[in-house]
Amino acid sequence: MDFVKYSFKNDYSEIAHPQVLEALSAAGCKQFEGYGLDEYSARAAGLIRSIISKPSADVHFIAGGTHANLVALSSFLRPHEAVIAPESSHIFVHETGAIEATGHKICTRKGSDGKLRVEDIESVVAEHTDEHMVKPRLVFISLSSETGTVYKKKELTAISAYCRSNGLYLYLDGARLGAAVNSEACDLSYSDIADLTDAFYFGGTKNGALFGEAIVICNDVLKEDFRFLLKQRGALLAKGAAIGAQFEALFKDGLYDRLARHSNMTASKLAGGIAALGYGFLYPAETNLIIPVFPANIADALHRSYSFHDWQNLDDMVAVRLVTSWSTPEAVIDGFITDLSVLSAN
Amino acid sequence: MDFVKYSFKNDYSEIAHPQVLEALSAAGCKQFEGYGLDEYSARAAGLIRSIISKPSADVHFIAGGTHANLVALSSFLRPHEAVIAPESSHIFVHETGAIEATGHKICTRKGSDGKLRVEDIESVVAEHTDEHMVKPRLVFISLSSETGTVYKKKELTAISAYCRSNGLYLYLDGARLGAAVNSEACDLSYSDIADLTDAFYFGGTKNGALFGEAIVICNDVLKEDFRFLLKQRGALLAKGAAIGAQFEALFKDGLYDRLARHSNMTASKLAGGIAALGYGFLYPAETNLIIPVFPANIADALHRSYSFHDWQNLDDMVAVRLVTSWSTPEAVIDGFITDLSVLSAN
Amino acid sequence: MDFVKYSFKNDYSEIAHPQVLEALSAAGCKQFEGYGLDEYSARAAGLIRSIISKPSADVHFIAGGTHANLVALSSFLRPHEAVIAPESSHIFVHETGAIEATGHKICTRKGSDGKLRVEDIESVVAEHTDEHMVKPRLVFISLSSETGTVYKKKELTAISAYCRSNGLYLYLDGARLGAAVNSEACDLSYSDIADLTDAFYFGGTKNGALFGEAIVICNDVLKEDFRFLLKQRGALLAKGAAIGAQFEALFKDGLYDRLARHSNMTASKLAGGIAALGYGFLYPAETNLIIPVFPANIADALHRSYSFHDWQNLDDMVAVRLVTSWSTPEAVIDGFITDLSVLSAN
Amino acid sequence: MDFVKYSFKNDYSEIAHPQVLEALSAAGCKQFEGYGLDEYSARAAGLIRSIISKPSADVHFIAGGTHANLVALSSFLRPHEAVIAPESSHIFVHETGAIEATGHKICTRKGSDGKLRVEDIESVVAEHTDEHMVKPRLVFISLSSETGTVYKKKELTAISAYCRSNGLYLYLDGARLGAAVNSEACDLSYSDIADLTDAFYFGGTKNGALFGEAIVICNDVLKEDFRFLLKQRGALLAKGAAIGAQFEALFKDGLYDRLARHSNMTASKLAGGIAALGYGFLYPAETNLIIPVFPANIADALHRSYSFHDWQNLDDMVAVRLVTSWSTPEAVIDGFITDLSVLSAN
Repeated sequence: MDFVKYSFKNDYSEIAHPQVLEALSAAGCKQFEGYGLDEYSARAAGLIRSIISKPSADVHFIAGGTHANLVALSSFLRPHEAVIAPESSHIFVHETGAIEATGHKICTRKGSDGKLRVEDIESVVAEHTDEHMVKPRLVFISLSSETGTVYKKKELTAISAYCRSNGLYLYLDGARLGAAVNSEACDLSYSDIADLTDAFYFGGTKNGALFGEAIVICNDVLKEDFRFLLKQRGALLAKGAAIGAQFEALFKDGLYDRLARHSNMTASKLAGGIAALGYGFLYPAETNLIIPVFPANIADALHRSYSFHDWQNLDDMVAVRLVTSWSTPEAVIDGFITDLSVLSAN
Repeated sequence: MDFVKYSFKNDYSEIAHPQVLEALSAAGCKQFEGYGLDEYSARAAGLIRSIISKPSADVHFIAGGTHANLVALSSFLRPHEAVIAPESSHIFVHETGAIEATGHKICTRKGSDGKLRVEDIESVVAEHTDEHMVKPRLVFISLSSETGTVYKKKELTAISAYCRSNGLYLYLDGARLGAAVNSEACDLSYSDIADLTDAFYFGGTKNGALFGEAIVICNDVLKEDFRFLLKQRGALLAKGAAIGAQFEALFKDGLYDRLARHSNMTASKLAGGIAALGYGFLYPAETNLIIPVFPANIADALHRSYSFHDWQNLDDMVAVRLVTSWSTPEAVIDGFITDLSVLSAN
Repeated sequence: MDFVKYSFKNDYSEIAHPQVLEALSAAGCKQFEGYGLDEYSARAAGLIRSIISKPSADVHFIAGGTHANLVALSSFLRPHEAVIAPESSHIFVHETGAIEATGHKICTRKGSDGKLRVEDIESVVAEHTDEHMVKPRLVFISLSSETGTVYKKKELTAISAYCRSNGLYLYLDGARLGAAVNSEACDLSYSDIADLTDAFYFGGTKNGALFGEAIVICNDVLKEDFRFLLKQRGALLAKGAAIGAQFEALFKDGLYDRLARHSNMTASKLAGGIAALGYGFLYPAETNLIIPVFPANIADALHRSYSFHDWQNLDDMVAVRLVTSWSTPEAVIDGFITDLSVLSAN
Repeated sequence: MDFVKYSFKNDYSEIAHPQVLEALSAAGCKQFEGYGLDEYSARAAGLIRSIISKPSADVHFIAGGTHANLVALSSFLRPHEAVIAPESSHIFVHETGAIEATGHKICTRKGSDGKLRVEDIESVVAEHTDEHMVKPRLVFISLSSETGTVYKKKELTAISAYCRSNGLYLYLDGARLGAAVNSEACDLSYSDIADLTDAFYFGGTKNGALFGEAIVICNDVLKEDFRFLLKQRGALLAKGAAIGAQFEALFKDGLYDRLARHSNMTASKLAGGIAALGYGFLYPAETNLIIPVFPANIADALHRSYSFHDWQNLDDMVAVRLVTSWSTPEAVIDGFITDLSVLSAN
């Protein structure tokens, strides 16, 4: 990689947490059923149902997040039905038109702090009045959002209530659900999320897994034939046990939350150090993805030692995206703050 | 699983070969680039290019075989272009309409021994005469085939020549390419395959990997923007290194071929034992997937101890599909033959 | 066109019946609502509901038959659901993969006389056992069939009953519905068809209209949001009145049936003359499309004066497709029989 | 319709110009080839090639505008390629996601006066940097625009030049091309448009035809197999002559331009009268679609006698869309201005 000291580009730069890899190795030469019908997947699904307090939920394991989104949305919608999502959403910006490739339009609103508000959803609905336009049918939100912020229980409850009274499904992209739920800024539990949404997924890739996400379908109406859709889109992994075993490792004794808390802790420490040096943030620093604003020359200097994405140019300032992970060493944070303080002093 | 002694259902029942898992563990907490732009993937691609003697080939890693097929075919074809494939092909029977879901029709022919012949392709082409019909544009074959048979060099050369003179692409599904090329019945090398096809893939899932296939694009015309297509279909794994590291382990010192040879050897031993007891086969037993024909009562009795798929009912006989893998113990084969001989004696 | 005396290539070679064109001219400079919400369309839909004795049916007008099929099927099916159709069906052979282009596989059976039988449907259903295969969900038949034959009431009732007990929709392509229902070989009424199917269409293009088909949706479950689907596929004509006015002209005083009966009468006379000269037919001659079998040299000679499609080569014989229309003059039939008799005498 | 005096809702409220209908009637019982291979279509295509001074252009006739757009765009683009269009464009707002339903994302910019500017296109291109985003590949503009405005030759030339240097196709929706080219505000000729774009269409439906649009493909690269795509999307009308004959009538002696000029003249007179009463316009009144701004109570009062769409609410004012057509009587314009002047005086 193109850095000297450390990469803050994302939270999937390391292969996997050792306990996850051990779980895979422990399988040895045991034979298991294919396509997710194995005992690992069954146990992992059971753990997830228990964590969300929803014994009736369907749980499906899938290799990646874009894939999870496109299979789920194209399974839930009829051809003329559309998605409502924030302008910054991953499906709208960074999935190469994956949702449109399955035939569905995404109607966007700017939202606030990377989040969609009830009024945003309302305005999309109000605008779509007849058969010459798509029919908005599903609201897509991310927790945490693309800008690292979280929905409060009050916000998600309001969105959920609006959706239910207006015939809209609510789908939550949980690529960073662990970081969100374990954030001090978030008062939502996993079971709240299962109660308030129709479907969502637990992200593994960005929280210690080698790969894999767990799609949870809460609304009975959306459950039918989902395995057909997974298979048709190339998402039913032959060795489903390879994901099941990882999720079992992540959920059987709280590893998932511990890893998320470490990510948050290191990001919080990083944000604290940056703030102490007098810098501000583009959005509230609530999870393991933060967006501080630095003078352009400082950002340039940091780029010489660290790897990270610039988020937005703001005249002579630049907002940069720093992401920590389950494996970010605290010493790296200390080093970064020291480097920043030296650069700031010049 | 629903068996007492052993499962011959497929060659992806075990998690992964230990060396593959070790390669993943060896990555430790090293940071790498995302989406297949990492050093592991680069080295694995280099090894593959070397093995096929095609320095200019593009290599892309992807999680599974159905996914590889659908991304490749939908990338290579315009909307009205169709695929020619054997009636028994995986894409026609066992991928839940994945190719049609990307908009393309599959035109089939029965073929022979699970293989397509030049005359089959010719007859499809002859039948499609104008714009009221789809335009056949790509020939899809599998090596080894769904019935475990292999193409001879002469056969593949003839198909390739026909395709090239008739404006057809030739795509080869190599889910079991290792078993095929390492079969005594097969006189094709990996570089022959790269020379004769426009694109193909090396199967990892069915030959010791935890998961993963390596798509190889030989024809320059088909290379453009393939990563866009991968991403759009949800196939660009965030931790691409997780596949790259596995393929490096498989190809750096011949492990891939050793595993395939073990699969073939155990299948060959199994076929030999079965033949010695006087049973025949539906198709030639050439690789690690064989289809012997047993009296129905014998098959039923075997089902009580072993797990395997029935392939076809033939009056009071039944053809059954037995698949061995890189990890099948020779003792299991001996046991099966003993059991069969006891059953046959009754 | 490439003929000297007459074309028997199809039943849409003439622009339109004069009464249809008059109905269009009669509209003058009157202003009407767009997109099928006009009074002509409303009256035409009412006439159709009355003819089929189904006041609750939804009626939608659309420009062409391939378009009707693709909009209907893609509206009725979820992505993994498939169509069961006879091998000879228009959607499988002559619509350039239109159904597959909307994402759905077509599972075919040879059937008999161009028709699908209950046992054909049963065998497709029996073959599709799990999520690795598409899920057959809709049976597609044509009346009359591509070979000009008709279903008897008993046959259609059996298919309908099977579909209803097995969770399959029944869709009937009525491009030549007039000729079928007005055939002496057919004991089905329009209301029988509405009772036995979930949706079907009345063909206008092949029975005197300038263009246009009337889709009828009988099953309430399939009605929702159909206008969205029409619009999305480009099928909601701005000047919907242009189709509505034609169907009003066709149905307000029995013109539709009179035209169909003329087609059938001329075909019947043609078939009688051919039979009298000692020639046989590939399929029963039941409607306005007949398939006699001639020696190849006779067929060649006929091609010099008449335009028609060869259907199938049978050694030194050839089955040819002769189609009459609402405007075929009886004198043309007489002339053809005379020509044939002269050729046969040589 | 829901009006007392006249409808200004659109320019396709009347069935068709008498000369168009006469052309259809004149065909009598003549037989012609199906699917657009007839002599009428051939002559109409020839007339169009001559008018645009492009003997090599391909011309295809199709029933409607949404259909033309979706067939063309889905034929020209690979799956990951996207469209750049103004936010107000018909494909983005009023085609029920027809383009997305073929798999392609539309990237929008607000533009100016309903038109896209080079800087808008540049900014979309600049934003799309890698394979995680769609690849913008085709620029979609309308002439006249959805707000009734026209591109100047200088503007279209700049857009065309930018597209050609940046690997983008330029496609022009000409649903109202006649009104645009015949507008005094427009200095573009039909041949300019053929020179500057890669493909476009002449709208018939909104300029006197019963139905039908003529797609013109100027860029050789985009011509291949277009008839397959037409057929696959249900757009190859069996009686293609029914459109060909209409376009022959429209183009053989300048009827198309005369009708467009009448539309413009009546709109211009209407705009002049409105302006004389002191009202302004949301966009320049350049063609047969104008958007004046009235006080809400005046607009309400007008709605009691006239039918038209409200375009946008602006506090206590409302912008309304008034569309005239080839058949709008001048007396109706006089009456409207009188009514408006009376209402304004109160």
